[in-house]
Amino acid sequence: MSKAADLYPSRQQEEPQIIKRQDPTLYNRNFSNAPLSEAQLKQYERDGYILLPEVFSKAEVKRFLAEMGQMEKDPELLASDAAITEPSGNALRSVFQIHHNNDLYARVAADPRVADIARFILDGQVYIHQSRLNFKPGFSGKEFYWHSDFETWHTEDGMPRMRALSASILLTDNTEFNGSLMVMPGSHREYIACVGETPEDYYRESLKAQTVGTPDAGSLQQFQQRFGLSSTAAKAGSVLLFDCNLMHGSNSNITASPRSNLFFVYNAISNQVVEPFSGGKPRPEFLASRETITPLQSPAPQRKAG
Amino acid sequence: MSKAADLYPSRQQEEPQIIKRQDPTLYNRNFSNAPLSEAQLKQYERDGYILLPEVFSKAEVKRFLAEMGQMEKDPELLASDAAITEPSGNALRSVFQIHHNNDLYARVAADPRVADIARFILDGQVYIHQSRLNFKPGFSGKEFYWHSDFETWHTEDGMPRMRALSASILLTDNTEFNGSLMVMPGSHREYIACVGETPEDYYRESLKAQTVGTPDAGSLQQFQQRFGLSSTAAKAGSVLLFDCNLMHGSNSNITASPRSNLFFVYNAISNQVVEPFSGGKPRPEFLASRETITPLQSPAPQRKAG
Repeated sequence: MSKAADLYPSRQQEEPQIIKRQDPTLYNRNFSNAPLSEAQLKQYERDGYILLPEVFSKAEVKRFLAEMGQMEKDPELLASDAAITEPSGNALRSVFQIHHNNDLYARVAADPRVADIARFILDGQVYIHQSRLNFKPGFSGKEFYWHSDFETWHTEDGMPRMRALSASILLTDNTEFNGSLMVMPGSHREYIACVGETPEDYYRESLKAQTVGTPDAGSLQQFQQRFGLSSTAAKAGSVLLFDCNLMHGSNSNITASPRSNLFFVYNAISNQVVEPFSGGKPRPEFLASRETITPLQSPAPQRKAG
Repeated sequence: MSKAADLYPSRQQEEPQIIKRQDPTLYNRNFSNAPLSEAQLKQYERDGYILLPEVFSKAEVKRFLAEMGQMEKDPELLASDAAITEPSGNALRSVFQIHHNNDLYARVAADPRVADIARFILDGQVYIHQSRLNFKPGFSGKEFYWHSDFETWHTEDGMPRMRALSASILLTDNTEFNGSLMVMPGSHREYIACVGETPEDYYRESLKAQTVGTPDAGSLQQFQQRFGLSSTAAKAGSVLLFDCNLMHGSNSNITASPRSNLFFVYNAISNQVVEPFSGGKPRPEFLASRETITPLQSPAPQRKAG
């Protein structure tokens, strides 16, 4: 793909720039056959996110957490590139590519309660661009600074268009106290072209604390004034779905309560990655699917056991 | 004062210990002549804090903020020991001893709307043990980890008993988003003896990020389970009064909205500092009044102008 085709240039200029979104948010408007109500889908389109309370049962969440507990004790996993620790200390921050290296979480990624909505909103087959388990441990969980995921996926991974969404499946209660995700509703309709070149192999650092590819203070101040802030605090088992370009971030967590979640990025098959728009080398496979792109197969949603 | 008289030993043992409070919280129970209602005072006694909404007017807050703006531009002040920057970068985090080096803030410290309550609760004359202006700037404000102020004042400053309280005067709206103070209601009735010796001149580091004199994770987990967490989010101009031994902390602030406040520690004259119970040398005067202890003089609360 030539440079001319870059609709969302970033990290290329000396001054930040705000660019209008060139893509739909809601790709399918056939509301009569949708996995969410028309009101919910229009809310998603307007705000760039929707919170679905307690989609997964307490028993399911318990099972997911038990699996997480196993992963924390797996020395091979801990030594792998896919395991990221907190900026200071050795507390586990994230494990990537869980749709690939873990059977249970692979099934969750394909669960029709989430995947059907992704297929509807993006109007077609989807695959997992990135997945991770976020631990956000108690006492020492650090903040994630404001960012649009798409800015990174476009610049560092080569995702061409805004035709992807994230599902965050809460494994613990997210409260105002333990660093629940903050979002700027409606911010997904504008794109902040960031300042600063991407260093080589920047992902090693940015997964712990990102500085390049984050918006400047002036743009963020303007965004906060225009869009405001919303909390996404919710009970364990709830699902937060949000557009790839929604501005979001979270504060630290000094409470004793971990803020853990499963995170899956659904990308339209038609929107699979090309060469990174930064011109740099692509990030490793565990951060961005490139070699292993297969449409998600979910069981037919209507089929019942028995 | 001999070591035997240390009712609240800390940083002396290898294992943390929880000690019952040996002192009253509310020293005066003559409710008929009190600056707060009996219900409010009993709430303070039970919870260890009380939030008084919008005590200072918008105009007063504006004046306080303008003064703060001046201080941020004062090169002499910025170069002084009393000015503390954020752990990374040069953003101003706190300025100490403002009751001493700033006329306006000195008047605020003595304002009867706050000082009368301090005198009532502590039952007698009071002086300012410590004062500061906290900036908690937008985007980059870091967390304050859980701690009891008294633990530090006792160990590092030699404050003998729990007969002090803090007043935090909010200069900006404190919300669930910008790192408002979290407290554990009722935790002031117990004292966590912390682990770890105090390094010499430790204050230089601890004012940016404290690690010694903070409770261990086990004790905090137990405290959170027993006492729970409360938010103290409130509008600018509100005053949070809290006991010297209340467990409190705050998360980071990545929003564009600063979380600034004036902070005054009222200590009973009868409770003035002795030698530090750590056995180390005392912290400098700008952190703990030792040489300059004078009872606060407030104008008589009933006297009206004209």
